[in-house]
Amino acid sequence: MTTERAAAQPQNVFDRFHGVIPAGGVGTRLWPLSRAAAPKFLHDLTGSGSTLIRATYDRLGPLCPGRTMVVTGVVHRGAVLAQLPELEDTNLVLESEPKDSAAAIGLAAAILYRRDPNIIMGSFAADQVITPVDVFQAAVREAIHTAAEGYIVTIGIEPTHPSTGFGYIRAGEPLAIEGAPSAHAVIEFVEKPSEPVARGYLESGKYSWNAGMFVAPVALMLKHLEANEPELYAGLSEIADDWDTPRRVKTARRVWPSLPKIAIDYAVAEPAAAAGDVAMIPGRFTWDDVGDFAAIGRLRPATENSKIMVMGEGARVFAENASGIVVSDTKRVIALIGIDDVVIVDTPDALLVTTKEHAQEVKKAVEHLRASGDTDVL
Amino acid sequence: MTTERAAAQPQNVFDRFHGVIPAGGVGTRLWPLSRAAAPKFLHDLTGSGSTLIRATYDRLGPLCPGRTMVVTGVVHRGAVLAQLPELEDTNLVLESEPKDSAAAIGLAAAILYRRDPNIIMGSFAADQVITPVDVFQAAVREAIHTAAEGYIVTIGIEPTHPSTGFGYIRAGEPLAIEGAPSAHAVIEFVEKPSEPVARGYLESGKYSWNAGMFVAPVALMLKHLEANEPELYAGLSEIADDWDTPRRVKTARRVWPSLPKIAIDYAVAEPAAAAGDVAMIPGRFTWDDVGDFAAIGRLRPATENSKIMVMGEGARVFAENASGIVVSDTKRVIALIGIDDVVIVDTPDALLVTTKEHAQEVKKAVEHLRASGDTDVL
Repeated sequence: MTTERAAAQPQNVFDRFHGVIPAGGVGTRLWPLSRAAAPKFLHDLTGSGSTLIRATYDRLGPLCPGRTMVVTGVVHRGAVLAQLPELEDTNLVLESEPKDSAAAIGLAAAILYRRDPNIIMGSFAADQVITPVDVFQAAVREAIHTAAEGYIVTIGIEPTHPSTGFGYIRAGEPLAIEGAPSAHAVIEFVEKPSEPVARGYLESGKYSWNAGMFVAPVALMLKHLEANEPELYAGLSEIADDWDTPRRVKTARRVWPSLPKIAIDYAVAEPAAAAGDVAMIPGRFTWDDVGDFAAIGRLRPATENSKIMVMGEGARVFAENASGIVVSDTKRVIALIGIDDVVIVDTPDALLVTTKEHAQEVKKAVEHLRASGDTDVL
Repeated sequence: MTTERAAAQPQNVFDRFHGVIPAGGVGTRLWPLSRAAAPKFLHDLTGSGSTLIRATYDRLGPLCPGRTMVVTGVVHRGAVLAQLPELEDTNLVLESEPKDSAAAIGLAAAILYRRDPNIIMGSFAADQVITPVDVFQAAVREAIHTAAEGYIVTIGIEPTHPSTGFGYIRAGEPLAIEGAPSAHAVIEFVEKPSEPVARGYLESGKYSWNAGMFVAPVALMLKHLEANEPELYAGLSEIADDWDTPRRVKTARRVWPSLPKIAIDYAVAEPAAAAGDVAMIPGRFTWDDVGDFAAIGRLRPATENSKIMVMGEGARVFAENASGIVVSDTKRVIALIGIDDVVIVDTPDALLVTTKEHAQEVKKAVEHLRASGDTDVL
C-alpha cells in the first residue's frame, strides 16, 4: 500500500498532495443550458466528449490518484457520481445548501486535516477549461513544492487582455524554492478592476488573473481561516470532527445551515497574502472559465464550411447567411436566416436568443425570471 | 323555405350567390408555424381570436348564409370541420391531393352548376386578412350585381406600395351597372412586375393588386375553363357529374390525380379578360395576404410597453434591449437580449430565428429541409 510505503521512509511531497474540486456555481450567464439542476460543470462545453468536472478530475488524476475530493451540493450527488463513478464515498463531500467557497474549501481542509495533518491540498474549480494538461500539471508540481515550504500557493494566469471580469494577483520577488523555479511571492490580491486599471496591470507585467486555484498545507489554510473567520472555522471544525463518524449527517445538518457565506479569497487568500504567506506559480497554459456563451464560441470554433458553431448532438441546424453559436439540448430543427453573431440556446423548456456581444447580459434574464417567479426553468 | 319563396317570384340576385373558399397553400414563408399539417389558414395570425379560415367564412356568411363551400385537402377535413362545425357535408369538397387553383375553383363551379346553373359563385382564399368587413361585403355586393350582367368580376386592391410580390389588374372604362357604381372593365391581368414597373403602375392609378377574388356566374367560369383548359374541364365535369351520387368517391379517386395543375389566373381570368368578359370592383378595404412574418408584425403591433410583439398564449417572453416578433406555439420561456427586429418562431419540433428584413427568405429553409429529407417538420 502506498501509505505504508510512505510511512516507512521520508514522505514524498507529492504523496501528501490531495486534490479538492469544489463543484458549485450554476453558471448563470450560461442559462438556459446551465441551471440549478444541471450546472455548468455537468456540461461538455468544449466538445471534448467530457463534462467539465470529468475533465477537471482527469487533469488532477495523475497528481493524486484516488486522492481527489469533490465538494458539491447534495442535489448533484447522482449526476457527479455518474460522471465520476470511481469516486469513493470518503472523497465525496455533500453540502445541504450552497455556502460559498470558504465553507466548501474550508470543510475539505478540515476533513483532510483530521485524516492526516500533513496533507497538502490543491483546490481547483470544477468548471474551468485548461490546456495543455501537462503544462498545468507541471505548474501544480511546482505549487506543491512551494506549499511544502509553508505557503498558500496560487496559480496565476498570464492575462491576454485587460479583463474587468477577473480579480488579479500582484506578484513580488522570486522565491528560491527547490523544484519550483518559477515561484514568486504574492504582494496582494486585487478585486476586479476598471478597464483603465486593468490596462495598467497588463502593461506592468506584474499582475496575473486570479483563477481561484490554491495549493496549500491544510494546516496553513485552517490557521488563516481560524484567524480571519473564527465563526466559520468553529462550525467547520465541529462538522469535520464528526465527519468520519456515524454522527456525520446529524452534525452537518445542524451546523452547516448556520455557517456564514464568504468567498475563500476574503476568508483566506487576501489576509494570508498580507501576512506574507502566499506564493504564486505562473500558469503558462491556456485557461478559460467559460464565463458566457461567447466563450463557447472561442473554445469550439465553427467548422470551415460553416460560420455557425453548433453544440449538441441532436440538433439539425440550417443556416443561410448567418453566423454565431447554436447550443442545442433538443432534437429540434433550427433554421437561422440573415442574422450575424447570434447566440441561440435551445433547451426543452427555455430558449435564449442573444448575440455574442450581449452574452454577458444573460444573467439579467435569469434575474428577471427569478423575480417573476418563473423559477421552474432556472 | 327561402328556395320556395325565391321560386315563387323573380329570383333575387343575392339569392343566387354562393361563396367558395379554396383552403390550400401551406404558406411556406410562415414556416415553421404554418406547415403541411397545419397550414396558414388554420392559424389565428391576427390575434382576433379566429383562425383565418373562420374569419373568411364569417366575412362571407351574411352574403350567402349556409351557402359557402370549402374546397380543401382531405388531410385537413378534421381541422376545417373543427373550425367550421356548421359546415354541411354538401358544402365540403375534399381534394385527395393539391391540384392548384383552377382545379379547386373549377370543381366547385362544376358541382354548383349541376345543382343550379344560375348560381353566381364568389371565390375567396381562406388565408387573407380583410378589414373592415362591411366595406368588403359592399364590394362583393357590387361584384354580384356586375357578375349578374355576365362578367367574371375580380375585386382589385388599391396598391399602397410598389409591391413586386403581387400580380396587378389593369382597369379600363367604368361600366354602367345598376347596383355596382364602381364597376370597371378590366383590360388585362399582369404578372408580378419588377420594381420600376410596379412604380409606374402605382403612379398611373390604373392598376390594382390581384388578390385572387373572383365573383362570377358558374356558367361563365365553366365556359372559359372549357375554352382554355379542355382537358381540365372534361375531368372536372366527369367528377362533378358523379359528385352528388354514390359514385362520388370512386370517380373522384380515378379522375382527380390525372388533372393538370394550373392557376385559375391562367386557366380563366387572363383569357377571359382578353375576351372582354372581366370586370373589377375596387376594394377600398385593408387587405393583407400575411405573406411572411413581417406581415404578422404589421397586423399585430407591439404593445406600448414592449418593442416585442408576442403571438401565442403560452409563451413567457423576457426581452431586454430587444425588438421584433415572437411567435410561440409552445409554453417555453423565451429570453431575448440585445437583438433588434428579430423574428422568432418557436414550435415543438422546429425553431426559426431570422429578422423582419429576411422574413421573405424563410422558404429557403423549407426548400433546404425538403432537399435534405427533414420533411417531418414541413
